[in-house]
Amino acid sequence: MKDKKLTYRDAGVDQEKAQELTEFIKEKVKKAFGFDQIGGFAAGLPLEGFKRPRLLATADGVGTKLLVAQAVNVHRPVGIDLVAMNVNDLITTGARPLMFFDYVATGKLEPEVFKELLEGMIKGCKEAGVVLAGGETAEMPDFYPPGRYDLAGFCVGVAEEEELLPKELDERTLLVGLPSSGLHSNGFSLIRKVLRQKGLSYQHFLPELGKRVWEVLLEPTRIYAKEVKKLKEAGVKLKAMAHVTGGGIPENVRRLLPENLRARVYKEALPESELFNWVRELTGLPDEELFKTFNMGVGFILFVDESELGRVKELLPEAFELGRLEKGKRAVVIE
Amino acid sequence: MKDKKLTYRDAGVDQEKAQELTEFIKEKVKKAFGFDQIGGFAAGLPLEGFKRPRLLATADGVGTKLLVAQAVNVHRPVGIDLVAMNVNDLITTGARPLMFFDYVATGKLEPEVFKELLEGMIKGCKEAGVVLAGGETAEMPDFYPPGRYDLAGFCVGVAEEEELLPKELDERTLLVGLPSSGLHSNGFSLIRKVLRQKGLSYQHFLPELGKRVWEVLLEPTRIYAKEVKKLKEAGVKLKAMAHVTGGGIPENVRRLLPENLRARVYKEALPESELFNWVRELTGLPDEELFKTFNMGVGFILFVDESELGRVKELLPEAFELGRLEKGKRAVVIE
Repeated sequence: MKDKKLTYRDAGVDQEKAQELTEFIKEKVKKAFGFDQIGGFAAGLPLEGFKRPRLLATADGVGTKLLVAQAVNVHRPVGIDLVAMNVNDLITTGARPLMFFDYVATGKLEPEVFKELLEGMIKGCKEAGVVLAGGETAEMPDFYPPGRYDLAGFCVGVAEEEELLPKELDERTLLVGLPSSGLHSNGFSLIRKVLRQKGLSYQHFLPELGKRVWEVLLEPTRIYAKEVKKLKEAGVKLKAMAHVTGGGIPENVRRLLPENLRARVYKEALPESELFNWVRELTGLPDEELFKTFNMGVGFILFVDESELGRVKELLPEAFELGRLEKGKRAVVIE
Repeated sequence: MKDKKLTYRDAGVDQEKAQELTEFIKEKVKKAFGFDQIGGFAAGLPLEGFKRPRLLATADGVGTKLLVAQAVNVHRPVGIDLVAMNVNDLITTGARPLMFFDYVATGKLEPEVFKELLEGMIKGCKEAGVVLAGGETAEMPDFYPPGRYDLAGFCVGVAEEEELLPKELDERTLLVGLPSSGLHSNGFSLIRKVLRQKGLSYQHFLPELGKRVWEVLLEPTRIYAKEVKKLKEAGVKLKAMAHVTGGGIPENVRRLLPENLRARVYKEALPESELFNWVRELTGLPDEELFKTFNMGVGFILFVDESELGRVKELLPEAFELGRLEKGKRAVVIE
């Protein structure tokens, strides 16, 4: 063996397999979106009918929720999460999301795993109304241990200049919450550590939730693009939006506030949630820590003038008044 | 310790440190690009003066070149590579690159490592004429071993519809090569395996190259945005461009060819290269395998009408006639 010349294939990189994979993705994407630019150096869309278009984009990953997916060998949900984390960020700017790109990195590509991820991403993109326009699937021998992959996503959209958010906020601004579908993609490092500490396996059945731990944890992140689109099409004037991710409600609302406004969030407005009761009990953490780490049942927050509340609730019956802005030093008060 | 309640910080996620990091990036980016949207949910740029704009984007990573960087603790070059891999892909479409986004994932963020990566990315973005508009820095405890990080990048640009490439190719089309700066970011799985097999360390000094192995390997990928811009501004009509990455010249030229055209590439046209002589000797591979795996000294290929060759060489003195298209079944012949 000593004199055998190593080819690129011997080194763990199989270009023919890569070619086959590209064909597979191409076909799936063509079928799902009627889009045929997969496999080129880049992918694009025409920007028609915009007067003063503004290009907007985001980059985000899924974080350690991936470790749960990889532990139980269920991958479709995190494909959805990847799209959700990016699209929900992007739409807060007022942009219409247009294209999504993924980066999937692994040691040795497992076709079955990749298929599930791709299915999840396609589902997420369809829900969000974006095209899965391209991406990179990186096989990196020696880099990732068997079964491990990381995901990064990227979403591009466009807004007319006058659609751009946030607009100016004032004391007449209400915070309107939209329910989350579960933990979304935040707080997983903590949850995983507590589960380990308590010796709870992902397969453990939780009677109060009627599901196993992993099913609870892997519930995909909700995508709020359709809801936001519906409000805009009905002419509802949105002032700002927050995607509740790392840092929870406090941090993601705070970053939108001017120096002279404080947000008051009503705890009793939060949806009754068996899930977050379980999280509270499991972690034993005080509310202050819980709110900094988890979405606590609120995945997305709309900032609207109080005169718009009725219309928002009519269009989105699940929307609820979560809080309001008031004069005071920039802060988020949860009570 | 058993009853200690774990907070998110105990679980390895430090939100204050994350906040500090955001401030640090914000400052650097503001200074480098005069751009102040870091830290929001998304980032954007106005699209002014376009008539029929077309949005284009790419996603790419650096691959196992990262393992070399991590082994010798030198990170700036791969920051440049990340930008280069994306920008060079994007410009092949005829687009003007506008914004770059990064995803940096690691177990525990090392500020010094991150600083070097950021410096590299900023350098790359400046060279490419794009804004480092945002990104995601993911700290994933338990996911990456100490010292390990992965990088993904995304680049967005815009082209007027009439600028879009490739245009129709014909037998009058020449392939004009631009030199690579080194291995760029391809072939590393193979090179690393051969080095290991031969017991050659990254610190080994190569007299024929006047450098250590790691210095040779980590030479950053050249960015061709300035050169392409120069040609376009001078009115040179480009028909297509190829970024020579995975699959080398054969694969990256082939993907641009129509069914009825064959590309002939002249081996003797390639720049004399001590580096690729070393690679040839080290790996002992035949040329066919070498060309499929490495760029062999050609990082970027311009497809132009033969009437444009003089102008291209005048504007870019390092450009060389690498080959031409001729009638025949779609293929790349290297001879």
